This record gives sequence, structure tokens and C-alpha cells, in this order.
Amino acid sequence: MRIDIITVLPELLKSPFEASILKRAIEKGLVEVHLHNLRDYTEDNYKQVDDYQFGGGAGMVLMIEPIDKCITALKKERTYDEVIYLTPDGETLNQKTANSLSLRKNLIILCGHYKGVDQRVRDTLVTREISIGDYVLSGGELGAAVLCDSIIRLLPGVLNDETSALTDTFQDNLLAPPVYTRPRDYKGLKVPEVLLGGNFPEIEKWREEEALKRTQELRPDLLEK
Amino acid sequence: MRIDIITVLPELLKSPFEASILKRAIEKGLVEVHLHNLRDYTEDNYKQVDDYQFGGGAGMVLMIEPIDKCITALKKERTYDEVIYLTPDGETLNQKTANSLSLRKNLIILCGHYKGVDQRVRDTLVTREISIGDYVLSGGELGAAVLCDSIIRLLPGVLNDETSALTDTFQDNLLAPPVYTRPRDYKGLKVPEVLLGGNFPEIEKWREEEALKRTQELRPDLLEK
Repeated sequence: MRIDIITVLPELLKSPFEASILKRAIEKGLVEVHLHNLRDYTEDNYKQVDDYQFGGGAGMVLMIEPIDKCITALKKERTYDEVIYLTPDGETLNQKTANSLSLRKNLIILCGHYKGVDQRVRDTLVTREISIGDYVLSGGELGAAVLCDSIIRLLPGVLNDETSALTDTFQDNLLAPPVYTRPRDYKGLKVPEVLLGGNFPEIEKWREEEALKRTQELRPDLLEK
Repeated sequence: MRIDIITVLPELLKSPFEASILKRAIEKGLVEVHLHNLRDYTEDNYKQVDDYQFGGGAGMVLMIEPIDKCITALKKERTYDEVIYLTPDGETLNQKTANSLSLRKNLIILCGHYKGVDQRVRDTLVTREISIGDYVLSGGELGAAVLCDSIIRLLPGVLNDETSALTDTFQDNLLAPPVYTRPRDYKGLKVPEVLLGGNFPEIEKWREEEALKRTQELRPDLLEK
């Protein structure tokens, strides 16, 4: 899999891809992530990428020209499955979308900043608009990192233990059951007895019940899907 | 405002806080963000912070002891409004929550990793559980960066133009209207005439209509709130 991220702030995205699971996935050659600085696709001396919006109002808007140039240059090299624009009014990211995007080969992710991008970019260059949630961020960069993490951890071979992602919250529309580790007793707080006994069918039953209980309490909407 | 982030991967969080709006907010003294490496609160030579889960199964679990020590040390220094744990089964973050958290003084944010934290941490040390969306990430670090960004950009003085955050998507349960910037004509793609005329009441009316139209099309659920 290859992911190309177009941004005005590549430096913001540096550390998330240089740590932990994303770093390992890149080192193992399971995914390539390329950051493209939008300013490299400008032609004026100021490397201007944004401007005031027509009609007045607060906030700068990313211009179509450098974005068009960058996407066109990338598309000359290979075919892309999607050009994704991260925006709070896009379709809301969920595990199902992450699962399906993890099966694609080449993705472009465009990060907006400030007030977003010129609408003509969205109308003509973007194929899919995704939001990571109903809140506003200063730019699309953190959204891009979140989207990449949600996708890349699903690629075969990325997690050390393949079963680990399968038992995640949301993979079966259930929240995960409570987990416990050492010590058995911490200042009087004890691990449930059932987990210590080694009776695996009983443990499995307890976990299923707890997962269902937690889902009913906290997210009954998941059970209706 | 002061935010203390507890994590096993402080290096992952480095660049988001050293770029753009978060950096400026910190430099202006509008917010302090402190990263705490959970390994500094261990006492064994291996600096062990996680262990296998009781009852068997894939994935490591963060232990209660170092988390308890870190939170206790922080609480000795000052009073915290919330100890927030980032977890996919927490309450879903939205703009209203971001607004209300931006009014708090001191926050602790605990990042889980792998399978999460020992349930006893959640039962006794955490006051609030927040999810940034219905998907699974490799750890809570990106969620912490997202949560901090959503809060910090709302602090007075952080955005250059105070009105900028007020016209954001979600602040009035409407998606933002389309925005356009130069050039007026890009390869035949034109900016809507109304935005070029300088008739501001008309522009305002167009924006309201477009915002409503976009919300009805893409997120009718927001209008029912």
C-alpha cells in the first residue's frame, strides 16, 4: 500500500510516522507514506498556497492551483484508488471504512488548513470526503495521521499478533470487554476471579457477557446496526 | 490552561505540539502542555509498563501501578478538573465537549496503548472517558493530540482572528458553506458570481442557504439536535 499526503505542514506529521506501529509498518515495507509540501507546487517567490476568501469573512482558504499541480503530478506516476479530503463535513470515519480502505493500493490524502480548500478542489479533484469526528481541528494533518493509523494497523503483518485487531472494539459491533493485568491485588483492588482460574470456556463466556453489557450501557446504538 | 499527557510514547506526540497553532498557543503562554513518560514511574530495571492480560488473549495491557504513581504525583502539585482516558468505548468527542473542556483549568489525559489499560485504572483513577470516533487506533496518543487541538484552538487569543472559530462547522449545528479564493476562473471553473459582487447582505444570505443545503444533504442528523 502507498499513501501520499498533501499538506502545508509536513513537519507536523513527522513524529507520528516515526514512532511505534506506523514506523514498524514502514520499516517492514508493508506501507509507503510520502509527505508532499504544497508549497513545492507553487511558482511565485512567496510560495503562496492560501488567500482570503471571496465575499469576505475570517480565515484563509487553500488555493486550487498548487493542489491541482500536486495531484496531477502524482497521478502521472500511478493510478490512485481515492483522493481523500479530510473535512469535518465529510462522511464520518468508522471501523468499516477503515477496513475497506485498508484493502486499497494507492491513496492520496489532502489536508485542509484554516477554513479549508477552494470548493472547486472538492468538486473536481477529490473523490471522497472523510471526517474523523464532529469537531473542528486547526487542520487536516492530525486527521490524516488518525486515518493512516486506523488503516495501516489493519494491514496483514503490521500488528505482531494477527488476532489482536480482530478482537478490537467495533470489529463485531461490540465494545471490548474489560482487561486486567498484574498485580492480582493492587491496594485491595482485585482482578475478577474468573480470569485467574484458567477455565477458558468460562473466561470466554464472561468476556462475551461483559462486552454485551458494556455495549448496552454505553453504546446501545451499535447493537442496532 | 494546563494539560498533562501520560503516555508510553512521548516521542510520537512531539511534532504535533511543535508546529502551527498548538506551538503558537504554547509560545504565547496560553496553554502549557506537559508530556509524561509512563516508564519514568516504574521501579524495575526493565521499566516495564505493560503485561499480558489475565485470562489469556492477544495484546498487552498497561499496568495500574505506574499510572497510579504518575497521577498521584501530578495531583500533589495541583488540582485537576478531569482525568481523561482516551478509549474507543468512551463518550464520543464532539464540538460541545471541546467547548466545555476549553473552559477547564487543569486536565490530565491518559493515553492507552495496545489493548488499553487495566480496568482498575478506569474504575478508580479516571473521571471521564472520551473517544475521538468509532474506529480503533494503535494507541491513545493521536487521540490526545486531536483532543488537545480541538480544545486549544478555542482558547481566547489562540486563533489570530477570534471570529474564525465561531463560524466553524458544528458551532451552530450547521456545516460550513463552500469557500472560494483566487483565481476567479481556474481552467474554466468559476467562483459563484454572488461572492464577487460585494453585496454583503446577499452574500450572507447565500452562505446561510448553502450551509443549510449542505447540512440537509450530508448531515440531516445535525438539524434534529
